[in-house]
Amino acid sequence: MAIALIILAAGQGTRMNSDLPKVLHPIAGAPMLLHAMQSGATLDPDHTIIVAGHGADAVTAVAQAHDPGAQVVLQTEQLGTAHAVAQAAPALGDYPGDALVLYGDTPFIQPETLEKMVAARARHDIVILGFAAADPGRYGRLVTEGETLARIVEFKDATPGERDITLCNSGVILAPAPLLFDLIAEVGNDNAAGEYYLTDIVALARARGLSATAVTCPESETMGINSRTELSLAEAAFQARARAGALENGVTMPAPETVHFAYDTHVGRDSVIEQNVVFGPGVTIETGAHIRAFCHLEGCHVARGAVVGPYARLRPGAELGEETRVGNFVEIKNAIIDEGAKVNHLSYIGDAHLGAGTNVGAGTITCNYDGVSKHHTEIGKNVFIGSNTMLIAPVTVGDDALTGSGSVITRDVEPGALAIARAEQVNKPGMARKLFDLLKSKASRREKGAE
Amino acid sequence: MAIALIILAAGQGTRMNSDLPKVLHPIAGAPMLLHAMQSGATLDPDHTIIVAGHGADAVTAVAQAHDPGAQVVLQTEQLGTAHAVAQAAPALGDYPGDALVLYGDTPFIQPETLEKMVAARARHDIVILGFAAADPGRYGRLVTEGETLARIVEFKDATPGERDITLCNSGVILAPAPLLFDLIAEVGNDNAAGEYYLTDIVALARARGLSATAVTCPESETMGINSRTELSLAEAAFQARARAGALENGVTMPAPETVHFAYDTHVGRDSVIEQNVVFGPGVTIETGAHIRAFCHLEGCHVARGAVVGPYARLRPGAELGEETRVGNFVEIKNAIIDEGAKVNHLSYIGDAHLGAGTNVGAGTITCNYDGVSKHHTEIGKNVFIGSNTMLIAPVTVGDDALTGSGSVITRDVEPGALAIARAEQVNKPGMARKLFDLLKSKASRREKGAE
Amino acid sequence: MAIALIILAAGQGTRMNSDLPKVLHPIAGAPMLLHAMQSGATLDPDHTIIVAGHGADAVTAVAQAHDPGAQVVLQTEQLGTAHAVAQAAPALGDYPGDALVLYGDTPFIQPETLEKMVAARARHDIVILGFAAADPGRYGRLVTEGETLARIVEFKDATPGERDITLCNSGVILAPAPLLFDLIAEVGNDNAAGEYYLTDIVALARARGLSATAVTCPESETMGINSRTELSLAEAAFQARARAGALENGVTMPAPETVHFAYDTHVGRDSVIEQNVVFGPGVTIETGAHIRAFCHLEGCHVARGAVVGPYARLRPGAELGEETRVGNFVEIKNAIIDEGAKVNHLSYIGDAHLGAGTNVGAGTITCNYDGVSKHHTEIGKNVFIGSNTMLIAPVTVGDDALTGSGSVITRDVEPGALAIARAEQVNKPGMARKLFDLLKSKASRREKGAE
Repeated sequence: MAIALIILAAGQGTRMNSDLPKVLHPIAGAPMLLHAMQSGATLDPDHTIIVAGHGADAVTAVAQAHDPGAQVVLQTEQLGTAHAVAQAAPALGDYPGDALVLYGDTPFIQPETLEKMVAARARHDIVILGFAAADPGRYGRLVTEGETLARIVEFKDATPGERDITLCNSGVILAPAPLLFDLIAEVGNDNAAGEYYLTDIVALARARGLSATAVTCPESETMGINSRTELSLAEAAFQARARAGALENGVTMPAPETVHFAYDTHVGRDSVIEQNVVFGPGVTIETGAHIRAFCHLEGCHVARGAVVGPYARLRPGAELGEETRVGNFVEIKNAIIDEGAKVNHLSYIGDAHLGAGTNVGAGTITCNYDGVSKHHTEIGKNVFIGSNTMLIAPVTVGDDALTGSGSVITRDVEPGALAIARAEQVNKPGMARKLFDLLKSKASRREKGAE
Repeated sequence: MAIALIILAAGQGTRMNSDLPKVLHPIAGAPMLLHAMQSGATLDPDHTIIVAGHGADAVTAVAQAHDPGAQVVLQTEQLGTAHAVAQAAPALGDYPGDALVLYGDTPFIQPETLEKMVAARARHDIVILGFAAADPGRYGRLVTEGETLARIVEFKDATPGERDITLCNSGVILAPAPLLFDLIAEVGNDNAAGEYYLTDIVALARARGLSATAVTCPESETMGINSRTELSLAEAAFQARARAGALENGVTMPAPETVHFAYDTHVGRDSVIEQNVVFGPGVTIETGAHIRAFCHLEGCHVARGAVVGPYARLRPGAELGEETRVGNFVEIKNAIIDEGAKVNHLSYIGDAHLGAGTNVGAGTITCNYDGVSKHHTEIGKNVFIGSNTMLIAPVTVGDDALTGSGSVITRDVEPGALAIARAEQVNKPGMARKLFDLLKSKASRREKGAE
Repeated sequence: MAIALIILAAGQGTRMNSDLPKVLHPIAGAPMLLHAMQSGATLDPDHTIIVAGHGADAVTAVAQAHDPGAQVVLQTEQLGTAHAVAQAAPALGDYPGDALVLYGDTPFIQPETLEKMVAARARHDIVILGFAAADPGRYGRLVTEGETLARIVEFKDATPGERDITLCNSGVILAPAPLLFDLIAEVGNDNAAGEYYLTDIVALARARGLSATAVTCPESETMGINSRTELSLAEAAFQARARAGALENGVTMPAPETVHFAYDTHVGRDSVIEQNVVFGPGVTIETGAHIRAFCHLEGCHVARGAVVGPYARLRPGAELGEETRVGNFVEIKNAIIDEGAKVNHLSYIGDAHLGAGTNVGAGTITCNYDGVSKHHTEIGKNVFIGSNTMLIAPVTVGDDALTGSGSVITRDVEPGALAIARAEQVNKPGMARKLFDLLKSKASRREKGAE
C-alpha cells in the first residue's frame, strides 16, 4: 500500500525542563524521534514528513542524519494536532496514498501494530489505534459498535457509561491523505484550549457516512513521554524488553537487570554478558563471545570466542577477531584486532591493526596523535609488544618482531627483529637510604620554616 | 523563635551488628546523625546538644567536625528517652527558649515539618510529631480531639478502638525547655522495661491543664533505623528521592536507578549522568556537563560542557574547567584543569595545575610523591604532553611546550620548548626469533629438570 | 543414616536455547548442578550418582572436578524420571541404605530441608518433599491424611476439591534404595507422554501397605529452572538471600542491590562493600576490610583493614595483607601483598611478592611474561618503586631499595640501593613551536593533496 508518514514532533516538552527538544531526548541511545521513524519506516513509506516546531533546526539535523529523504515542515505556532498535521499538506501535494500520523514522543508503536492498521484500512476509511488502558483516567474513549468505531469521546464529555470504557485513543491515525486533509480543514477550535484536535475528524468522517474502525495494541506501545520521569520509565521499559529478548535468544546474563542495551545491539546465542555492561549504539557480539563485567562498548564488532574485559572499553571502529582477548583497563578505538591477538592490561590501542596471534604487553600505547593529526600503527602477526611500549604512529612493526619493554618505537621494525630503546640500568648501592634521609631532612626543614 | 536542639544519639544499635555506633552509619555518604543535625540546623538553633552514649568519643568527633558549636553530653546508662533528654538539662542551664527533641537514628525529618511544629507551638504548650502509619503495628497511638492531642497511648494499653487509630507517635517533640525538664522530672519508670519514657510528658502536661497538639508528616520522614536492612532501605529511600529530584530539575539520566547520589550532590540542568555513576560527598556538576558511565566522583567540581569518563575517577580537589575532557581510566586528585584541557586516557594527575587547551597524552603520570612529601606539577597553556610522560614534581612545563612520549621530566621546561628524555631505538634484525628460540629451549629444559 | 544421592541431570533443557547442558548453566558462579551436589553432600552420602544424558561428557567433567568420588551414569534415552533413577541401580548394586533423589536443575533445596526428610524417614517408608505453592497451577498435588501422604494426584486427574490443595510435589524423594528400585520396576508408561514417572511409586507403595509422608519446605527451595528467564530469577533469588545474609552478618553495604556474590563468598563483619562490586568464586574478605565501588574480585583474600578500589581487580591468588591499599585501575594476580604495602594507581602486579610497607608508584608493571613463560618478581620491605617502573621478571628488589621513575629494571637491586635506567632530559628551546608549525603545514599539504 502506498503510504506517507506524518510524524508530529513540534512540541516544546515544557515538563522535560530541558533546552533539548523533547523528541531528541534519547531512549536506548537513539533520540525518541528515531524510534518513531524506524517503526514507521517498516511500512516503506513514499514520504516521511516530520512536523517540527521547537528546536526545529536540531530536529531537522537528527531526522535527516537518520533518513536523508525525510522532509521537515515547520509548525510555527502550536495550535493543536489537527493544525500540526495540516502543515504537512503542502509537502504531500496531491499525494493520493494513505497518510499515517505518528508522534515523535510515542516511540514504542511496533511494526506489527502498524501492519494491523494497514490491514484494517482495506475495510474502513479511517483507522484509529486504541489501547486497553489499565487506568483509563482522562484519556479519550473509543466508542465501538462491533468492528466500527462509532466515535471518540473526550473524558470530560463522556457519560458515566462511556467512562467505563477502557479502550482509549492513542492519537495514531491512518486515512487516505486527501481525505485526511479535507477533514482537517473542517475541524474547529471551539474548546477550552482553543486548539484544533485531530481526533475530531472521526466524527466529521462519520457524519459524511464514512467508516472508521479501531485497531488495538498493548498499552506499553502507546506510552507517551512528557517528563524526564516518564522518559526514564520508557527507557526502563525498553531495557526490560531488550533483556527478556536477549534471554529468549539464548544470551547468558547472570544479572540482566544490570545490562544496558542500545536500540540496535545485536548479541549472539550462547554469548555471555556479565554484570554492569553498557552498550552504546552500533554493537554486534557474535555467538559464543564473552563480555565480562564493567565493559563499555560502542560501534564495535566482537567475533566468536573473543573475551572482553572486565573493564574494557571498545570504541567505534573496534573490530575484535575470533578468540581475541581484550582485558582490564584497555581502550580500543578504530582498530582491527586479528584472530587470537591479545591486549590484556592497561593499554590504549587506537587507529591500529594488530595481526593474528600478536601479544600486546601491559601499558602499551599507540601514540596516534601528534597534536595535529591522527596516524596509523600497523603491527604484524605473532608480534610480542613488550610492556609499556610507546608506538609513535605512523609506524609499522613486522611479523614475529619483538619490542623491548619500556621502548619508544619511532621507526619501523622489520619482521623478526628486536627493537629496543632503553637506557642502561645503574644500581647505586646505599643511595636509596641516603636519598630518603635527605628528603626527610628537607621536609623537616620546610615544616620548621613554616612554623 | 529561640530554640535548642536535643538529639538523642546514645543507643548501641545492637541489631546493627557493628562496632560502629549506630548513628554514625552513613546514608548517602554522611553519618545518619548528620542528617538529623542538618535538618535541625535549618531552625537556626541557639544550642545543639547531642546526647551520646555508646561510642561517645566517635560520635563527638563526627558531630563537632560537622558543627564545632555542637555540645555532646553523656548518657552513661540507657534508662529511656526521658532520661536521655534529662542529660541535656545541665548543658542548657536556664535556657528560656524551646527545646526540640530529635533522634540520631531518624534522619529524614524534613525542615518543612519542623517549621510546621514551630508554627503549632504558637498555639500549644507541647507539639508532638505524628505520622499516618500504613501499618500502625505496635506504634504508640496519638489520640486527638480536634486540634488537641488528648493523650499518647501505648499499643499494649490501647483499647480496640484506639488500636484502629493510624496516627502514630514519632517521638519528636517540641516544648519550652524549662517545661520539658520540669515534666521529665515527674516521669516514672513503672513499666516492664523499667525505663523513663519521654512520651509520658504529654499525659503529665495535660494533667496540669496544658495544651498539646500533633503535627503530622509523611511516614517516610519518621523512618527509624535499627538494623542494616533498615539502613539499606533508608539509603534506597534517599536515593529514590534524590533521583526523582534530579529528573525533576532537568538532569538527563538514562538509568537513574544506577546513579548513587551523596547527601550534598549538586547537578545542574541538562547535565547528563549516564549509567553506574557514584557520587561521594562534595560534588558539584554544572549545567550541561556530561558524566559518562562508570564514573566515581568525590569533592570535585565539573564546569559546564565538560565531558568526564567513562571510567574516570575525580577525587577531592579536582576542578574541571569548561569544555574539559577527562577520559577512561584517568584519576584526577587535587588538580585544576583549565578550560578546554584534555586528559583522555590512562593517566594520573595529582597535585597539579593544567593550563587551558593543554593536551595530556595517554599514560601520563604526575609523580607527586617522592616517598616523603607531595609536590606540585605546573603545566602551562596549550602544552602537548606526550604519551607516558613522567612529570617528577616539583616541576613546571611552560606554555606551548611539548614533551616527548616516554620522557621522564625532572627539570623545568621553558615555554615553547621541546623536552625529551629518550634512549635511541636500536633494531636488531632476526634477534626476536633467536630470542624466542632461546626462551623456548630454556623453558623446555626447566620442564625436563622438573620431571 | 546411610544414604546415597541420585541426582538427575540428563535433560536437554531445550528452552534454555543453549549448547551448554542445562545443569551446567551457572548460578552465583557455580554450575547449578554443583548447588544440588553441595546441598546433598551435607548428608555425607556413601554414594553420589549423577544421571547424565545430554552433554554427559561436560557434566561428568564438572561433577568430578567438584567431587572426584561422584559417579556418572548415562541415561541415553529420556523416558521419564523413573527411568532416569533406574539407570542408577547398577551403580548402587545391592546398596542397603536409603536413596535420595535430587534434581540438577533444582539448586536451592536447603540442607535443613534434607535433614527434615531424613528425620521423617524414621517413621515412614517413603518421604516426599512438598511445598505450599502460591499459585499451584498444574503442579501435582499431595493428598495428605494427617501425617500420611495418601497419594500424589496429577493436575489433569485431580477433582475440583483436590485442585484446591496448595501442597505440591517437588519430585524430591527419599526411600530405601532396594525398595525404590523395586517400586520403579513396576512403574508403567501408560500416559500421554509415554514416560515413566517417579511419583507413581507412591501409589505403588501405598498399594503394598507401605507408609508415605510429605515434608514441606518453602516454595523458594523447589524453584526449578527451565529457561534463561527462570535462571536469571534463580540468580536474583540467590543474590537477594546472599545480600540479606551479609547485612544480617554485619556487612556494611550502601547499595546491596548492586553487589553480586558468588556461591562461596565470605565477607567479615563491619567490612564495607560499596556499590557495584562483583565477586567471582573463592573470595574471602576479612572483618573491617573496605571494598570500594566498581571492584571485581575472584579467588583472593583481603585481610582486615585493607582498602581496595575503586576500580580494582583482584584475580586468583591475590593475597592482600592487613592495612594494604590497592587503588584505582590496578590489577593484582597471583601476588602476595604484605602488610601496609600500597599499589595505588594504574598498575599490574602479577606473579609477585611485595614486602611490608612497600609503596608501588603509578603505572608500575611486573613484566611477568616473556612470550614463553611466566616469571616471579620479588620486592622487599619498605621499597619505593618509582612511577612507571617496569620490573622484568625474574627479578628481585631488596629491602629499602628505590627505583627511579620510568626505569626498566632488568637486574636485581640490592637492599638500600637506588636503581635507575633513564635517558638524560634534553630541553630544546623553541623547538615545540617549530615542530607544531611543521606538523600543521604537513597536515595542510596532505589535505590539499587529498582534494
